[in-house]
Amino acid sequence: MLSMRPIGRVRSPYTTTLEVPKGLGAKHQVEGTLEIDPEFEPGLQDVEGFSHLYVIWSFDRSEGYELVGAPPTDSRPHGVFATRSPRRPNPIGLTVVEVLGREGRLVRVRGVDMLDGTPILDIKPYLTSVPSEHLRRGWLAEAEARDAAKPE
Amino acid sequence: MLSMRPIGRVRSPYTTTLEVPKGLGAKHQVEGTLEIDPEFEPGLQDVEGFSHLYVIWSFDRSEGYELVGAPPTDSRPHGVFATRSPRRPNPIGLTVVEVLGREGRLVRVRGVDMLDGTPILDIKPYLTSVPSEHLRRGWLAEAEARDAAKPE
Repeated sequence: MLSMRPIGRVRSPYTTTLEVPKGLGAKHQVEGTLEIDPEFEPGLQDVEGFSHLYVIWSFDRSEGYELVGAPPTDSRPHGVFATRSPRRPNPIGLTVVEVLGREGRLVRVRGVDMLDGTPILDIKPYLTSVPSEHLRRGWLAEAEARDAAKPE
Repeated sequence: MLSMRPIGRVRSPYTTTLEVPKGLGAKHQVEGTLEIDPEFEPGLQDVEGFSHLYVIWSFDRSEGYELVGAPPTDSRPHGVFATRSPRRPNPIGLTVVEVLGREGRLVRVRGVDMLDGTPILDIKPYLTSVPSEHLRRGWLAEAEARDAAKPE
């Protein structure tokens, strides 16, 4: 068994799962805030240089799991690992959000699909596969540019 | 605190972190296997319809964390949430892998950057932003096609 603890909470306009858009063509354009606990604030240094972040979080209002079930996007059943169902063996959620700005331990983002108060477990830079015209890679792009400019 | 348990293990050619390509321009083309525990095999139904999967795993050979540090890609320090450092408050790893095939509870994949024996916590379909010519969306594309073909 592994123990995880929240590093902060999501602030979202959604308070029940019924409010979160689901199913085919659902768009997540809602703004929210990643409110990181004060002790972890130093870990946010430079996240604002990325256009997008992965947020790894916990489905804290989901109970139990179902290995095969029909998601809202289909009437046919699928394995839970082929869906984004909240009823998973480990209730881990994953959302790609767009960074709007940071003020200290508060990261304003677009694209939340979590409920208000959702525990955040981790944040990582999103590096792959956003269409390049929309991608900013923060300090990594700067580091690459410095690397390329080095004399041989 | 939240308790998580492994749903399986990664089989990878890497046995030490020194072998895993890191830094600017590192390519992860190595093949490996997601070996899911027998009790969770039904949850894999239809994962083979997706071109790519997210694998959420645990840095089980990492100890402690560092909120600010210099990654192998840069000599300058950054917050841990702006890097993929293994030394994180919650030691969660995230890898996008390409699906090569599935035989029962074994999913063959390309793109592993985990060590052999790494505990897997979750698997999810990768739906966003792989260039569309490389993306297959499995049952979701079929469900959308059926939905579009419905009489009004």
